[in-house]
Amino acid sequence: ALTRAGRAEHDAAIMDGASERAGAVAGVCVIRNPLHAARLVMERSPHVLLIASGAERFAIEHGAATVEPEWFVTERARTELARFVSGGGPASRGTVGAVARDCQGRLAAATSTGGTTGKLPGRVGDSPLIGAGTYADARCAVSATGDGEYFIRAVFAHRIATQIESGSDAQTAAVQALEHVRLLGGTGGCIVIDGSGRPAFAHTTPGMYRGVADATGEWVGMFGDEQRGPVQRLQ
Amino acid sequence: ALTRAGRAEHDAAIMDGASERAGAVAGVCVIRNPLHAARLVMERSPHVLLIASGAERFAIEHGAATVEPEWFVTERARTELARFVSGGGPASRGTVGAVARDCQGRLAAATSTGGTTGKLPGRVGDSPLIGAGTYADARCAVSATGDGEYFIRAVFAHRIATQIESGSDAQTAAVQALEHVRLLGGTGGCIVIDGSGRPAFAHTTPGMYRGVADATGEWVGMFGDEQRGPVQRLQ
Repeated sequence: ALTRAGRAEHDAAIMDGASERAGAVAGVCVIRNPLHAARLVMERSPHVLLIASGAERFAIEHGAATVEPEWFVTERARTELARFVSGGGPASRGTVGAVARDCQGRLAAATSTGGTTGKLPGRVGDSPLIGAGTYADARCAVSATGDGEYFIRAVFAHRIATQIESGSDAQTAAVQALEHVRLLGGTGGCIVIDGSGRPAFAHTTPGMYRGVADATGEWVGMFGDEQRGPVQRLQ
Repeated sequence: ALTRAGRAEHDAAIMDGASERAGAVAGVCVIRNPLHAARLVMERSPHVLLIASGAERFAIEHGAATVEPEWFVTERARTELARFVSGGGPASRGTVGAVARDCQGRLAAATSTGGTTGKLPGRVGDSPLIGAGTYADARCAVSATGDGEYFIRAVFAHRIATQIESGSDAQTAAVQALEHVRLLGGTGGCIVIDGSGRPAFAHTTPGMYRGVADATGEWVGMFGDEQRGPVQRLQ
């Protein structure tokens, strides 16, 4: 996703649910893997969120791989921006999220994104904001995708976490939080894992690519109408 | 508060509790009133958070007053940075927050800050992050000050809002959320107003300058040991 100025600006966050430590970067253009930079912020700085050139300088000093900003400006991204600018296309998104539970029951969440096509330069969505697009504690881990502004206003991921803390199952909490986003005017989806390792998915968009892997196998899903549960076994 | 590089980088956010709309800027250096820029983001852009030069360009295009970056580099700020760098001083902060309820019962919150002395360039604290240092909905408005990183990890302001939603009074919710911050390792304080207009204050720092104004008068407080309630009548 490119800004109106034709640049790729990336945001990413990671949170360790066991320690409630977190790291995030926003508005970085030359870091090859923004999530790596977010992890460096968590592990090697006293801070949680670094932005723009300050984030890039910190990540580079700590060994993050860099690329030329143009490396992210693909033909497809350019076409999407041209379509958006001419009013003919939706604001496409490229968010990738992950939630995980390890064998000791510790949870973690991570989200990385280029934001939405045609965003103003400097726009930051929910992905790198702890409690909005990314959150993890002892009870659940959440990663969201969608119309970031509405997810920020809903404090989306923390809304799910507090619902789970007060007794909801993850699926119900996710559906309710998306309903709050919908009432504000936005759509999107999320992936959630709870303390017992149960995954939950919900989306108000027509589809959301998603997958699960555990000791018994791997499943993937794309649309919301699968008859055999939320995701299907991978062949 | 100056960064390690000797610059002043400001963050601010505003949220309208009735509509749950919000605007914020982070890492701005040339905007005279960062909170004005945050309000412009809320009212004149499709976004919630703009950062760094993109935020500055947007605010200037929409009429925000500018100053030279050096305008914020006061003698006192320079002295504090020198003391911090030499290991002799605490990371001082300059956060200002406000919460309000109008005659129709609508709530709002706003926070503006220069962050902490000696922060890495590009560091963003809790102030401009909706749900962390600033939040408002129909039930309460919250503005926080303190060790921003811990307030982000605690999703501090939204934590108070959800406690109030589930029946806590504002004072109890504020104390509990500060206790969560303390368990993570941080200190600070907050101001809260609930839907009935009752103000609440709490801080784990030795003092927190604060004031209240309503139709019956004005009160101010500085430390936490006032015998006649949390704040004293202004002479």
